[in-house]
Amino acid sequence: MSDSSRIIDGKAFAEKLRAKIAEQVAFLKEKHGFTPGLAVVLVGEDPASKVYVRNKGEQTKAAGMASFEYKLPDTTSQAEMLALIDKLNKDPNVNGILCQLPVPKQIDPQAIINAIDPDKDVDGFHVVNAGKLATGGEGLVPCTPYGCLLLLKDRLGDLAGKHAVVIGRSNIVGKPMAQLLLNESCTVTIAHSKTKDLPDEVRRADIVVAAVGRPEMVKGDWIKEGATVIDVGINRIEVNGKGKLVGDVEYATALPRAAGITPVPGGVGPMTIGLLLRNTLVAACRQRGVKLPD
Amino acid sequence: MSDSSRIIDGKAFAEKLRAKIAEQVAFLKEKHGFTPGLAVVLVGEDPASKVYVRNKGEQTKAAGMASFEYKLPDTTSQAEMLALIDKLNKDPNVNGILCQLPVPKQIDPQAIINAIDPDKDVDGFHVVNAGKLATGGEGLVPCTPYGCLLLLKDRLGDLAGKHAVVIGRSNIVGKPMAQLLLNESCTVTIAHSKTKDLPDEVRRADIVVAAVGRPEMVKGDWIKEGATVIDVGINRIEVNGKGKLVGDVEYATALPRAAGITPVPGGVGPMTIGLLLRNTLVAACRQRGVKLPD
Repeated sequence: MSDSSRIIDGKAFAEKLRAKIAEQVAFLKEKHGFTPGLAVVLVGEDPASKVYVRNKGEQTKAAGMASFEYKLPDTTSQAEMLALIDKLNKDPNVNGILCQLPVPKQIDPQAIINAIDPDKDVDGFHVVNAGKLATGGEGLVPCTPYGCLLLLKDRLGDLAGKHAVVIGRSNIVGKPMAQLLLNESCTVTIAHSKTKDLPDEVRRADIVVAAVGRPEMVKGDWIKEGATVIDVGINRIEVNGKGKLVGDVEYATALPRAAGITPVPGGVGPMTIGLLLRNTLVAACRQRGVKLPD
Repeated sequence: MSDSSRIIDGKAFAEKLRAKIAEQVAFLKEKHGFTPGLAVVLVGEDPASKVYVRNKGEQTKAAGMASFEYKLPDTTSQAEMLALIDKLNKDPNVNGILCQLPVPKQIDPQAIINAIDPDKDVDGFHVVNAGKLATGGEGLVPCTPYGCLLLLKDRLGDLAGKHAVVIGRSNIVGKPMAQLLLNESCTVTIAHSKTKDLPDEVRRADIVVAAVGRPEMVKGDWIKEGATVIDVGINRIEVNGKGKLVGDVEYATALPRAAGITPVPGGVGPMTIGLLLRNTLVAACRQRGVKLPD
């Protein structure tokens, strides 16, 4: 097996996903006369957040959807933010609502997230969507773990019976990832900072999902021969005085052992906005009572 | 270690728990002038359900709480059931609401569960409570896994770093149990019918929680020496023409290997109503804005 065939190209997958979404959106416009719409709310001037929001807006429009951007000053009160959410909840042209995090400290992010109509919560962070994911209901799933799942299914097909180890237990990635893999009938182990023998846990895994945010903490020689590795980490480190992005997995040593591995950058990262658009599409179809186009 | 010292006596623990709850209820009555109340709704004539409901009512009253019982005919419509739930949601003397399952087939149990005010959902089955458990929020936790957790903490103290294997992935036991153990910083593996090598998974576990409903399917020689075993199964089998209750674990062979093990009956079973009373107490204190008495 060549090294290049082991690399899971999230960038290429995300491009195909977005192209397909654009077709589905075009179909909805033509056959059902509506355009899915995504509202993104940005509070303050965080430079990274501004870049994300701009990218989201551009990709939303590129998929043929309506993009609504709300840029609020960093003095915005929680009440003002909640009033905007309420307006967007009631707007039938807005099918998805995303509040870019972090928000300034006068605003409680959980209060904002739980104020969004769960049916429009395209980030999948609302407590009702977390509950639906935990109990097998049909909600909206957080974008990053959902993207990881699509990459795994694309590579491996049926995941039933595979032993998956998820490293990290955040509400945004680790915990929903474990739920998704359990729903696919994997045997799932959730490991984290208190896990006693992480190398041993990883060695047993057919599927490794690393989401801890610590550069190259998962060593290549922990990876079982033929395992599939999804690296959610994006860590900026300095090498010879130059900045470099690395994942949570020691890529160079893991690559020859893995049957499939996502690089950083170019693996999981590009998937997230694609899944945001997909969630918006799904939400729009549900809200309009229309079947999701094939 | 003697065999008797290995036995985790859920019956005795539950009695202590209920006695403590009775003290807390008495304190609330005296110092804050209110009595926590639990409403139990039974639809139809299922004999087992009638026994459960009677037991719940008796134990509720024995703890000094108010018990409200609603026995509806098996022809009750979903609309009538929802109207009753709505009335109970609005009644300030009712702090907890439980609908005894199963319900007749004209009623959708999920619709009933999600109609209960999450703050009064003492079964912990509402999607909002599942979401809170999944994301670390302060909700109400399903009684059976909560009881298992109390038995484990009583026996083992701090659970952080222990490797726990939960067998079974129901919404009522397996999945919330895994969340609770993860919140205690265990490394958690969820195994189920699709798991490839269950004996191997169990052999690695410091804590085994079996919740599959298959008589003695977990063999004693799978249990690691010194592990703690919580057996949630209650299965009726026939031995020499006589009915007998057994768990999901082969008790006789597991007992000499385990440092602690719950018998069936007398282990997990008696805990459930105790935790229902505890949830009602907690719900009442939250609704009244009163600190839970020590």
